[in-house]
Amino acid sequence: MPIELSVGQYNLVYNFLSFTIAVMGAATVFFWFGRNQVAPAYKTAMTITGLVTFIAFYHYFRIAESWDAAYTIADGAVQATGTPFNDAYRYVDWLLTVPLLLIELILVMRLPRAETVKTATRLGLLAALMIVLGYPGEVATDDATRWTFWVLSMIPFAWIVYELFIGLTNAVNKQPAEARGLVNAARYLTVGAWLFYPIVFLFPMLGLTGATAETFVQVGYSLADVVAKAVFGVLIYMIAMRKSEAEGYGPQPSGKTAKQGA
Amino acid sequence: MPIELSVGQYNLVYNFLSFTIAVMGAATVFFWFGRNQVAPAYKTAMTITGLVTFIAFYHYFRIAESWDAAYTIADGAVQATGTPFNDAYRYVDWLLTVPLLLIELILVMRLPRAETVKTATRLGLLAALMIVLGYPGEVATDDATRWTFWVLSMIPFAWIVYELFIGLTNAVNKQPAEARGLVNAARYLTVGAWLFYPIVFLFPMLGLTGATAETFVQVGYSLADVVAKAVFGVLIYMIAMRKSEAEGYGPQPSGKTAKQGA
Repeated sequence: MPIELSVGQYNLVYNFLSFTIAVMGAATVFFWFGRNQVAPAYKTAMTITGLVTFIAFYHYFRIAESWDAAYTIADGAVQATGTPFNDAYRYVDWLLTVPLLLIELILVMRLPRAETVKTATRLGLLAALMIVLGYPGEVATDDATRWTFWVLSMIPFAWIVYELFIGLTNAVNKQPAEARGLVNAARYLTVGAWLFYPIVFLFPMLGLTGATAETFVQVGYSLADVVAKAVFGVLIYMIAMRKSEAEGYGPQPSGKTAKQGA
Repeated sequence: MPIELSVGQYNLVYNFLSFTIAVMGAATVFFWFGRNQVAPAYKTAMTITGLVTFIAFYHYFRIAESWDAAYTIADGAVQATGTPFNDAYRYVDWLLTVPLLLIELILVMRLPRAETVKTATRLGLLAALMIVLGYPGEVATDDATRWTFWVLSMIPFAWIVYELFIGLTNAVNKQPAEARGLVNAARYLTVGAWLFYPIVFLFPMLGLTGATAETFVQVGYSLADVVAKAVFGVLIYMIAMRKSEAEGYGPQPSGKTAKQGA
């Protein structure tokens, strides 16, 4: 389990974990403040957008603490303390946040109620299934098990991508013109950022192991989470603001531009 | 008291405790934000729904700390530190949250005031009595005492089930059509999730002890609490939203879909 990290690698990961804690905490405050600026129809979407970064904030704090406990710097070198680095926090985080990310997208699109409940439930369950199926592969030590669960996990992943790109096309076309481009951007960002995870999962099977691979994985997961949760959340916030405005909501003290997004 | 846990079992429990902390914290924020979206008549129900998860958040934090203090990983194996794992936090939690769970259901149903006070008091006291009677059995070491208090505790449990299914039938039928299905779901969820607890209580008497049983108990209690408190709370929130809407509450800028639930 313990690997031979250089001091530079140890610090790079540590600083990226801290960076992510700061981003997630700041994003949470931003989204929850934004909640008061959007029309009532979009408040739940903003609540959930902030919940996602809040849950990630908590888990990155735990991950950083675990990283801290797993290694110590002595005599200018990184030494494993014997306490294993608990990377499973990531799976616990994803189990909660990935379904919520899809739900915030569905909510901000504001489909008819029956469709909202149906689509959010289906996508939420598929996302949870995708994470649950990934976990046994992640903790497995042999390649056969890793491959099996990678393939199993990619089935709900592919289904979600299909739903986002084909299933939601009609709903996207019904979005007001001001928000349509942003909704499309949110769809592409989701799939783009999410592709990072199954690729990283393949690393050990491709012979990419050791300190450099571990550093890349930790930094890469942190960046992917920042994009998939915080940047994605800013898009959700902008969509909610544009749609609120298009629906004539809110005090607009000087012209239509009063309440535009971030 | 200390048992021979494998590293996998230790981590599984640890990750589930952390998962539950995250769920309870996130749910609390969600319910307290939701409080501002429902009609005044349902605000107290939402306050209490969030209080339940907030109290659980606190206790799961304590339980995780106690789990952390009770075991340590050294040389790739889990070793008991000598500090006993304090599972009694669960009873302290239930003593507070179980009466509140019943009260939030009564409040969101919005019975006539006299009936609300009477039913909430009766169900709240029965729930507290159920927990108090369970505790001496939980800490007892002999099977006879465990059985005695299990039976005693099941009397208020059965009474509560009776009240939920027979006593509240009229009140459920008077709920607006939009919310009736959800209120029924909340009743079934309560009884379904609660059945887990007396069954787990029986484990030691059925010879189910040791590391596997302990892992199952901790993971199972965590999941049962997530369902009974957070998932149940989402139902309460949805009932409050639907009823607020049915009563014409709230700004609905464009159409009935304005205030859709999570």
